[in-house]
Amino acid sequence: MVFSVEETCSTEAIAKAVREYAGVTRKHAIGEIIHCLRIESDDVVVSFGEDAALIKNNDDGLLLAADGIWSMLMEADPYWAGFCAVLVNVHDIAAMGGKPLAMVDILSIQNEKICHEVLRGMADASKKFGVPIVGGHLHPDSDFSAIDVAIMGIVKMEDAIFSHTAGPDDHIIAAIDLNGRIHPSCALNWDSATIRSQDEVRGQIRVMQRLGEMHLLTAGKDISNPGVIGTLGMLLETSNAGAVIDLGKIPRPDLLSLGIPFSQWVRIYPGMGFIVTAKEENVSKVIEMFEEVGITASDIGYINDSRNLTITYNRKESSVFDLEKEGIMRLFD
Amino acid sequence: MVFSVEETCSTEAIAKAVREYAGVTRKHAIGEIIHCLRIESDDVVVSFGEDAALIKNNDDGLLLAADGIWSMLMEADPYWAGFCAVLVNVHDIAAMGGKPLAMVDILSIQNEKICHEVLRGMADASKKFGVPIVGGHLHPDSDFSAIDVAIMGIVKMEDAIFSHTAGPDDHIIAAIDLNGRIHPSCALNWDSATIRSQDEVRGQIRVMQRLGEMHLLTAGKDISNPGVIGTLGMLLETSNAGAVIDLGKIPRPDLLSLGIPFSQWVRIYPGMGFIVTAKEENVSKVIEMFEEVGITASDIGYINDSRNLTITYNRKESSVFDLEKEGIMRLFD
Repeated sequence: MVFSVEETCSTEAIAKAVREYAGVTRKHAIGEIIHCLRIESDDVVVSFGEDAALIKNNDDGLLLAADGIWSMLMEADPYWAGFCAVLVNVHDIAAMGGKPLAMVDILSIQNEKICHEVLRGMADASKKFGVPIVGGHLHPDSDFSAIDVAIMGIVKMEDAIFSHTAGPDDHIIAAIDLNGRIHPSCALNWDSATIRSQDEVRGQIRVMQRLGEMHLLTAGKDISNPGVIGTLGMLLETSNAGAVIDLGKIPRPDLLSLGIPFSQWVRIYPGMGFIVTAKEENVSKVIEMFEEVGITASDIGYINDSRNLTITYNRKESSVFDLEKEGIMRLFD
Repeated sequence: MVFSVEETCSTEAIAKAVREYAGVTRKHAIGEIIHCLRIESDDVVVSFGEDAALIKNNDDGLLLAADGIWSMLMEADPYWAGFCAVLVNVHDIAAMGGKPLAMVDILSIQNEKICHEVLRGMADASKKFGVPIVGGHLHPDSDFSAIDVAIMGIVKMEDAIFSHTAGPDDHIIAAIDLNGRIHPSCALNWDSATIRSQDEVRGQIRVMQRLGEMHLLTAGKDISNPGVIGTLGMLLETSNAGAVIDLGKIPRPDLLSLGIPFSQWVRIYPGMGFIVTAKEENVSKVIEMFEEVGITASDIGYINDSRNLTITYNRKESSVFDLEKEGIMRLFD
C-alpha cells in the first residue's frame, strides 16, 4: 500500500518538524537520569531505553514500566488523560511482546471535578483492555493535577521483543490503526481505542504477543508522543543503528478530508501504533497479522549501519537525526 | 520491654492528635477512588487496602505497589525525598512478605537543582537496599517538583502477609528500629535507614520475608505516614476488626533527651517499622526475630471483634477510631 504525500512540504520541512517537536525534544533529559540511577543487577535483562524493563524470574520474564500524561492534556481533557494513562502503559507491555497483568496509579488532585473525570477515563480504559488497576498512591492535597500509571506484565524470556536489537538490512514496518479520529481535545492525538470494541482492542494488543511468540520480529516499539518518525529515532538510538524510510509509505488516513497536514500526522500520537523491524522473509507475514486485527501496516524502509535516520520522498532525502552527533534520549553520552 | 509515657498528656490527647493528624486524614479520599477503579479479575488476589497488590501467576505471587512523597518533603529536602521514595516502596513489598525486585520512577522536574538531589537520594537508597530502578517516566517541563515510585516484587502465594487477615485474640506487635534520629529536615520522620549499613537494612527487609515463610504472622503492615497508631487503624479497617493497645508498650527512643513529646512520636514515620499480628504462641519468636536484626519489637495489645481502636495508659482509655462509624480509608462506605 503506497500513499502519496499530498501536500507541498519537503523532506527537509518534515525532518525539521519532527526534530524540533516537543514530543521529541523533551526526551533529551532522559540520559542524565539514567546515568544517575543505573545500578548493576544480574536479574535485570534490559531497562532504560526499552518500553518496559525485563527482569528474569526463573523462566519467566517480568515486565515493569511507568508512563505519565502531559499536564497540557490533563487540563484540556481529564477524561481522555485518564484513558490515555492506561492506554500508553498497556502499549508499553504490548511493545515488549508481553501480557499486561495489572496497573497502579499515582494521582495528584487539585480539583475534584478533574479527579472524577480522570478516574472515569482510567476505569473505562481499564475495563476495555481488561487490565485491572490494583492500587496506587493518592496525593489528595496537591496544588496541581497529575496522573501517572505503572504497569506489570509477563513474557516468556525467549519471546520478548526489544528496542535495541534492530540490525542492518532489517525491514521497518509501521503499523497504525487508521480507523479513528483526531481527538477533539488534542490535535496531536489520533484516537482509535475509544471507537474500537473491547474485543478489537484486546486483539490488537495480543497481536504483539503473537509476533513475539512466533519470533517474527527483530525489534519493536510502540509509537508514543514523539510520533512515528521520532519513535523510530529512539529505536535506532537504542539499537545503535540508522535507517532510510520513505515518507510516502507511512500509513495515514485521508489527510485532505481531515484537513491536517502530513507534518502533523507524523508527529501525532496514534491510539494504537507500533514500529517493528523484521527480516525480509517475515515482512509479509507480519503485515498480514497486523491487518488481521485492523491495523494498517506498511514496509516503510530498512535499517542500515549508519547512525542516521534519513527520510526520502520523490527522490529527495533529508536527515532527521544524526545520532552520531546527538541522541534523542542521549543514552550513551 | 515496658516504657513509661513520660509526659503529662492523656490517652484522650493522644487519640485526638492521631485522629486529626494530616497523615491520617489525607487517607480519607482513598475509598472513593477504589469505588471508581475496581474491576473484577480472577488473578488479582488482593488489591486496594493492602500495602501491595498480589497477582497470581501460576505458583508465584507477583506484587505491585506505588507510593509517593509529600510535596512538603520534596521542598524541604529533595535528597531525603528521593531516598524516602525508594524506602517506602521497598517497605510496601517487605510488608507483604515479598522480595523487592525492581522499581520505576515518575519524576516531575521544575528545577534542575531539586532534580539532581532527588536523583542522588533515589540512587543512594536503590544501592543500599539492592533494588534497581529500571525505568520510568520523566515530565521534564512541569511547573512543580514531584517524585513517585512503583515497585514490583515476588512472594510465594502461601507465604504472603496481608493487612486484612488479623483476627480476634491475635497479639499486636509494634516493631521499630530505634537506632536512628529525628531527620534534620522533617520533625515527623525518624531516620534509621541512612545510618544503618547496607547489610543491616537488607537484613531488616528480609526479616519480613522470613516471618512470611515461617507463617508466624496473621497479618502485617509497614508503618507509614499515619504513624504507629494510624497504621494499626488502617490494618483494623481492612481486617474489619478492633483492638486495644497499651501506649506504654509502644517502642520508643529516649524522647526526653530528643526533646520530642510522645504525641509526636506516635505520629512519626519510622525509617523501618512494622505493625504485625500473631497468635499468642508465636509472639516471642516474632519479637526475637525482629530483635536479631536490630528492630525493637514489643507486644502492645490484642485484636478484638469490636470495630474500635482503643488506647490505654495507666488504667485510663480512649477510643482513637470508631471504624463502625467512620473509616480511615473508607474502603467499605
